[in-house]
Amino acid sequence: MSLLLPSDQDLQRSLGIHRVLEPRGSLPQPAWKLDNTPVAQAGETLVDVRALHIDSASFTQIAGECQRDERRMREHIRDIVAQRGKMHNPVTGSGGVLIGTVLELDERFAAMHGLAIGDTIVSLTSLSWLPLYLESIETIHIERSEVEVRGKAIFFRSNPLAKLPPDLPQPVVVAALDVAGAPSRVYELAQPGRRVTVIGAGGTAGLLTLCALRKRLGTDGEIVAVEYSEKALQDIAALGIADVIVQGDATLPLELVARVRAACAGSDYLADLVINVVNVPQSEFASILLAKPDGRVLFFSMATSFTVAALGAEGMARQVEMHIGNGYMPDCGDVALQLLRDVPALLAIFNRRFPERPPA
Amino acid sequence: MSLLLPSDQDLQRSLGIHRVLEPRGSLPQPAWKLDNTPVAQAGETLVDVRALHIDSASFTQIAGECQRDERRMREHIRDIVAQRGKMHNPVTGSGGVLIGTVLELDERFAAMHGLAIGDTIVSLTSLSWLPLYLESIETIHIERSEVEVRGKAIFFRSNPLAKLPPDLPQPVVVAALDVAGAPSRVYELAQPGRRVTVIGAGGTAGLLTLCALRKRLGTDGEIVAVEYSEKALQDIAALGIADVIVQGDATLPLELVARVRAACAGSDYLADLVINVVNVPQSEFASILLAKPDGRVLFFSMATSFTVAALGAEGMARQVEMHIGNGYMPDCGDVALQLLRDVPALLAIFNRRFPERPPA
Repeated sequence: MSLLLPSDQDLQRSLGIHRVLEPRGSLPQPAWKLDNTPVAQAGETLVDVRALHIDSASFTQIAGECQRDERRMREHIRDIVAQRGKMHNPVTGSGGVLIGTVLELDERFAAMHGLAIGDTIVSLTSLSWLPLYLESIETIHIERSEVEVRGKAIFFRSNPLAKLPPDLPQPVVVAALDVAGAPSRVYELAQPGRRVTVIGAGGTAGLLTLCALRKRLGTDGEIVAVEYSEKALQDIAALGIADVIVQGDATLPLELVARVRAACAGSDYLADLVINVVNVPQSEFASILLAKPDGRVLFFSMATSFTVAALGAEGMARQVEMHIGNGYMPDCGDVALQLLRDVPALLAIFNRRFPERPPA
Repeated sequence: MSLLLPSDQDLQRSLGIHRVLEPRGSLPQPAWKLDNTPVAQAGETLVDVRALHIDSASFTQIAGECQRDERRMREHIRDIVAQRGKMHNPVTGSGGVLIGTVLELDERFAAMHGLAIGDTIVSLTSLSWLPLYLESIETIHIERSEVEVRGKAIFFRSNPLAKLPPDLPQPVVVAALDVAGAPSRVYELAQPGRRVTVIGAGGTAGLLTLCALRKRLGTDGEIVAVEYSEKALQDIAALGIADVIVQGDATLPLELVARVRAACAGSDYLADLVINVVNVPQSEFASILLAKPDGRVLFFSMATSFTVAALGAEGMARQVEMHIGNGYMPDCGDVALQLLRDVPALLAIFNRRFPERPPA
């Protein structure tokens, strides 16, 4: 006797369980393999895919393993999608987002998102959730973690997406939406008058987060920006938003603590809120050590280890509240896109980092 | 030129960096290997170890790999400690706690914890943090994840511990302190009038959490207890604290949702707060699906995957705030121990599950 009611079957279908090949009954994201047949079934929406914007942790890992050789990276990506039916990096466990055009549209999905056939959309679901069928891989833009492809993807009803806005350049929008959960959530959690430290502040998520913080804190409160790359540090400086800028390596926690303290002129340097948007592993301890004992740490990096964070805080006797960064927020990226409109220096950096493709 | 100030060197020493062999400069917990020489250096405290209470995720994994064969488990544990200089399961990444007697005592550590030589203590730091030297492994108590040993451990100043209270049986105290962070944090986070669901409610952490919730919620609010094991379900019933008890498997999220909804009589079944204290992997989705979209999930299970949780919430378009359960709370286990004193039915279950050793 099945316990499932009709509403459960709806839930199953809206989540995409029917596309899971291995292991059966699993949800699509943790599943090893999805059925990526590029034909829309009931409740599904079919998208013509133009580009993949691969998650930074995943792209860094692939580029490293392939020694930044474009041919090898292309093969590597093709192999992952062929093996798993989705662009789900088995090493990092992460995905990214895709950009494409609606080909076939489920009615309820259309109503939920105000969609029409032909609309250009960006997925707000991780690629690790979406059945993806690749016809070909065209160009890899290493500098912006983007892969131009020809292919098809399936969206289930539960998968969030955003329509491309007409007033912002497409590569900029895709890059911003990929990490839009960070600024949106930070905007809700930060409180005026507090010190907030952003680790990895010069990355895409980091710069958006700095702007969201300033908007939320006003002139009240202190923003400390930590970044490793010299080039990204220049962008943070150009943004003119951080109160304190620190060059440092988050994987060397004690050295970083020393640098942050020095930059804060020896005064109290611990933050009420630490936001980790670093794209390399082993930055958990630095994040915890830079937070007040009763502060909060938001881990948005997909390279975060649950056990390292949990046992680290325990071992260091820090009460700190730690959050698993959740990329979904009901604004579906509006906060991030509005920041690009409101902060010209931010848009300038994004335009430089994510240039428009030359017209085909 | 070193950036480190004297206070940084203090911090390094109090964290135990000087004992890390591999990789150098790392903190002890994430390190692969520690120097476990059983001689106290400056700032260190030496403990004569009597027993290891291995983390449930780790113990389950070891017991499974060794097919519950005691001789094989003994060798397996000996090998881990020989390889790593600490009882840090390389598969689960988790540790557990130890019980022992203070042999040599750092002055500042003594003052912090009101300690004297000869005191019997329980570590509140994960075993994955503490240099451990094993002379011998005596008996393995599979039913309570405990290993009687002869050995020595080093505590650094930053490592929390608790003195054994005189009024409660030792095995019961050790078991409770191992998971004491869960009831303590839940007690702070739960709010009267809300629905709270505990997944894995029949385990050690689960039962304590149920009691902490009832104490916090009073008669206001609803407690839903989810548990897989029939035997543990009987304990939940005997406790008489949960408003709704559901038998179900958290690794089958959709079936579990159906069961919880059925048990809640079709009414609203989503929780404001979901607490995951399950000791097997792949229960992230069930936890997210049982929380209200704007609810919270606390993951206390060491088997939690950061990426599965983050991408799962995103893929299912759930805004839910997710916490990495942090085992450290400044009460150092007092909340958990007080529950054992206040709730006779809880103490009875613990006494049965963790019986006193026969006198030597």
